[in-house]
Amino acid sequence: MRIAVPLFDGFTALDVVGPYEILRMLPESEVTFAADAPGPCTDGEGHLRLHATASFRDVVEADVLVVPGGPGARRSLADESLLDWIRHIHTTTTWTTSVCTGSLLLGAAGLLDGLEATTHWGAVDTLESYGATYTARRVVEQPGGIVTAAGVSSGIDMALRLAELIAGRVAAEAFQLAIEYDPQPPFDSGSYAKASQEAKSYLAARPRRTARPASR
Amino acid sequence: MRIAVPLFDGFTALDVVGPYEILRMLPESEVTFAADAPGPCTDGEGHLRLHATASFRDVVEADVLVVPGGPGARRSLADESLLDWIRHIHTTTTWTTSVCTGSLLLGAAGLLDGLEATTHWGAVDTLESYGATYTARRVVEQPGGIVTAAGVSSGIDMALRLAELIAGRVAAEAFQLAIEYDPQPPFDSGSYAKASQEAKSYLAARPRRTARPASR
Repeated sequence: MRIAVPLFDGFTALDVVGPYEILRMLPESEVTFAADAPGPCTDGEGHLRLHATASFRDVVEADVLVVPGGPGARRSLADESLLDWIRHIHTTTTWTTSVCTGSLLLGAAGLLDGLEATTHWGAVDTLESYGATYTARRVVEQPGGIVTAAGVSSGIDMALRLAELIAGRVAAEAFQLAIEYDPQPPFDSGSYAKASQEAKSYLAARPRRTARPASR
Repeated sequence: MRIAVPLFDGFTALDVVGPYEILRMLPESEVTFAADAPGPCTDGEGHLRLHATASFRDVVEADVLVVPGGPGARRSLADESLLDWIRHIHTTTTWTTSVCTGSLLLGAAGLLDGLEATTHWGAVDTLESYGATYTARRVVEQPGGIVTAAGVSSGIDMALRLAELIAGRVAAEAFQLAIEYDPQPPFDSGSYAKASQEAKSYLAARPRRTARPASR
């Protein structure tokens, strides 16, 4: 099971690592983190660097593609070399998936036109500008093996569903047990519909950090 | 808010990144990933490399310490230089925390003797060998600012509670909204008490991968 994850400066780390911790347990999984060049990519907050293990040109096919989001995803919506790579890998996959604003990259690549899809709650208009119909579900499966997940942490739920589709329900339940995914958030503020106005105002007022340039 | 996260080969990536995605949003947060030397550390599965941004000797204090688990945590239980670093940083923190088998490192450092604590469900006996009383809760807070979380994904729940303690409930709710943490696992197999015997047997029979040595 070849799993490919594109990285770019400004990715969101949990978009990558949530699905990774499930999909890595699939039988004979091989996870490749691809970027313009092998080496560290810096996340959107500027604190965390994850290593790309291959360059885009060296990754030509995959069974599962997982496209993460983050501020760098929005900045890459006109990056034709990244979009071309996504389009090409999609022709080789069984499952083409995204987490958070990774769906904007699928949209910009033309893969969501006419489909239902989801994304981070703050990116709905951009998603729909690519011809997709936003669907406020946590994981949205569509014909052609395209699966989109909502914001950041939803990639864990998506990956469990993918694991079921790929390896069966017992395997997926085993992976859930392995990461002890029995979520008990202390608040009920995880969706735009449920969060308080104070929480929304706090988030809107939070200073945006400018990520430091990646040291390579 | 200075947050220190030790890395070592064989860490579990979600133990690190789950809390990171919450704690990075704290006001004026600075997250340092520390290891024997700056550079990439390879996770327990051997696929993922995260960069340490500092060496242990250069990190001498922190407000929050987050110790991750993973196969490498179990291998490090007699690593006196790591344990000494944990002991020293603990004397400077407001919160000393762990995720998954990271609690075994806190235990080996002598910090859990006589306390209640939690860990991954597969590590209970080892935890108790350090004088701790295992408590089957997802997040366990103790006097002295010691907070332990259960397996892997529980670090997200722990970090939300820490965010509340540090920055208040509205901030913590805002961070939950930012990562759209409205978990909807497709199965109810996330704890040892709830998982089926088939899922447990599948997990026990899963071949263990030997992580490739880190390339530095």
